[in-house]
Amino acid sequence: MLETIHELIQKNKKKIVLLVIDGVGGLPMQKGGKTELESAKTPHLNALASESECGLHLPIGFGITPGSAPGHLALFGYQPTDYSIGRGVVAALGIGFPMQAGDVAARLNFASMDSKGNITDRRAGRIPTEKCAELCELLKSVSIPGVEVFVKPVKDYRAVAVFRSGGLSDHVTDTDPQMTGVRSLDPKPTSDKGRKAAEIAGEFIRQVSELLKGRQPANAILMRGFAELPVIPSMEEQFGLNPLALVVYPDYKGVGRLLGMEVVEDLKDLNDQAHALRDHWEEYDFFFVHYKYTDSKGEDGNFEGKIAEIERVDAFIPKLVELEPDVLIVTGDHSTPCLLKAHSSHPVPFMIRSDVVRPDGVKEFGERACAAGLWGIIPGIMLIRLALAYADKLKKYGA
Amino acid sequence: MLETIHELIQKNKKKIVLLVIDGVGGLPMQKGGKTELESAKTPHLNALASESECGLHLPIGFGITPGSAPGHLALFGYQPTDYSIGRGVVAALGIGFPMQAGDVAARLNFASMDSKGNITDRRAGRIPTEKCAELCELLKSVSIPGVEVFVKPVKDYRAVAVFRSGGLSDHVTDTDPQMTGVRSLDPKPTSDKGRKAAEIAGEFIRQVSELLKGRQPANAILMRGFAELPVIPSMEEQFGLNPLALVVYPDYKGVGRLLGMEVVEDLKDLNDQAHALRDHWEEYDFFFVHYKYTDSKGEDGNFEGKIAEIERVDAFIPKLVELEPDVLIVTGDHSTPCLLKAHSSHPVPFMIRSDVVRPDGVKEFGERACAAGLWGIIPGIMLIRLALAYADKLKKYGA
Repeated sequence: MLETIHELIQKNKKKIVLLVIDGVGGLPMQKGGKTELESAKTPHLNALASESECGLHLPIGFGITPGSAPGHLALFGYQPTDYSIGRGVVAALGIGFPMQAGDVAARLNFASMDSKGNITDRRAGRIPTEKCAELCELLKSVSIPGVEVFVKPVKDYRAVAVFRSGGLSDHVTDTDPQMTGVRSLDPKPTSDKGRKAAEIAGEFIRQVSELLKGRQPANAILMRGFAELPVIPSMEEQFGLNPLALVVYPDYKGVGRLLGMEVVEDLKDLNDQAHALRDHWEEYDFFFVHYKYTDSKGEDGNFEGKIAEIERVDAFIPKLVELEPDVLIVTGDHSTPCLLKAHSSHPVPFMIRSDVVRPDGVKEFGERACAAGLWGIIPGIMLIRLALAYADKLKKYGA
Repeated sequence: MLETIHELIQKNKKKIVLLVIDGVGGLPMQKGGKTELESAKTPHLNALASESECGLHLPIGFGITPGSAPGHLALFGYQPTDYSIGRGVVAALGIGFPMQAGDVAARLNFASMDSKGNITDRRAGRIPTEKCAELCELLKSVSIPGVEVFVKPVKDYRAVAVFRSGGLSDHVTDTDPQMTGVRSLDPKPTSDKGRKAAEIAGEFIRQVSELLKGRQPANAILMRGFAELPVIPSMEEQFGLNPLALVVYPDYKGVGRLLGMEVVEDLKDLNDQAHALRDHWEEYDFFFVHYKYTDSKGEDGNFEGKIAEIERVDAFIPKLVELEPDVLIVTGDHSTPCLLKAHSSHPVPFMIRSDVVRPDGVKEFGERACAAGLWGIIPGIMLIRLALAYADKLKKYGA
């Protein structure tokens, strides 16, 4: 079917905006209650719903809880189970590191360990980004023959390591034990192909341990999500789109770059995103606008906090609408119910607004309101096709 | 996708109960009327609906009328078109016969024929089970070189025959002419592979005819549903579940056993099933509870009778609810409208209740009430995925 879509592409200047409210879907905290989205005061989102076709989407499939990268892949029209995107790649691309085929990247957290070598804090007291950058600079003195090593700060205690030695494989296990009071794990190959990368990672960790010895609180590192650069057709190749990402949080820049999006740097908040959107309005035809903190508050289990974040997004909606996009989609990449303090498999509300929709009587942007919408429950990857169609970017199929 | 599900399994002690009200879906008997389920007084099912996510499921696909075995396969999460389960296998496993790979089983009905060899009654006057057992005992004297023959009583005039000779094929035609006043048919191979089994069946029928000669009313046999044991991954392998079947009717035990379920024997009614459920509650995490008589009354075209059976199930609901399963699904394996006196292709109402659902405002467990539910119409095989997700038995997919 994707091949068919590809053959039907016709480019034009019509504008599609996809607003992703991360983890927007939720659950009631008690029987008979409302969800976060249903509880929030969202006059602008509700007004949009009244002019839209509404529904729920399943990002990956029935019962599947999406990670952030697969959830976004689906929204961009890529079947997430066709492409494996490791955490390391998301992190590396997120900070703009130019990964090459054959590189292996991994997330690197600075951590604290006691004199016996047991991990006491997996985040090294959440050291600030400046400290993290300083330590990454220190790690530049690691030297492994035949291997280029890159260590770059991401945020707080988070960094990313990339090994380059020509055709490395990511078949390597995490060293993060995911708990404290135990030692970090050794990186191990999960297949013959992973042997070389595992050896490099092992040697890297030995040298880093020497360099960090005696430091406080960051005297250890934990690595996870070893990942090669996947081969994914760009959104230009796949859908003929010229996409721009307007994103604050690094990881989502990474996903955008993986699909060939241009990325606006140094955006700090929705205000910045609105300005950048206006500034670049003429240059692109697909705009990915991402809001992270709804998901964060969901993960924290902070019901009132998530409501406040949703209301913050609601106040931003007029800035999107005044640009008069030809197609505007508002949705999430997955649900993050405060009740669960985690991503969940529940379907995600969406609405799609353009001059060529059949508004379906849904007057509110909420999980159960949208369930009564025209589209019912559809696979997440279909949203982009609706957007392309309503923006007149797909020709007629057949005679 | 099934492979993805398999990789995401995380086991826990949470309990899933699947109540199958066989053939529960129905049709109005006249224009403007209600279905059997809509007509029944079901306060407990309706109360459950108010706390559930509701919808309809298509067991196999649009327009397909499910047999009992495929309908159940779908509910257990197996694409029915991927696995062929013959009637003979269902019957053999249903009575607990330990079939082996390479065996061929067939349903065997005792019948009556006249002096010209024409069938006069395809059920031998519905002889009682004891008589059937006696005749099966008599048939033990059949002797075919190189072949082990097993004949076991099922119920009333129904028995099952199993041939064992190493690697037999089930490519053999039925001998039941499906009408009276004609001779029974010869078993014929439908491919080269089926030749040996067809010869064995032919010889078996010749010897049985001699043994039954002069008896009344059972002086003939009819065979149908020649079937090999299909290779199906167990529910443990596929979904990490530890399943128990609480079933009265033999055939459904057979389907359960095929998927590696433990089966509680000698259950006579819903009361027994409720007791057994409580007795085994701690040992398993998936419970298949089956109720047959809604389907039987549907096949009889007995509208009032089917309503009464549905109300009997309704009265049983509190015994399920008081066990506080983490996930409770109530549905059917297919529709059996009294109007049609047969299974039908119509979608089947379902509801799924847990602490992590979004109740959708459906206040009644009925075909049209559930059509307005959150899930709309979904493939039957997806129900198990929702159950796994809501019981927290599936990890997050991807970074």
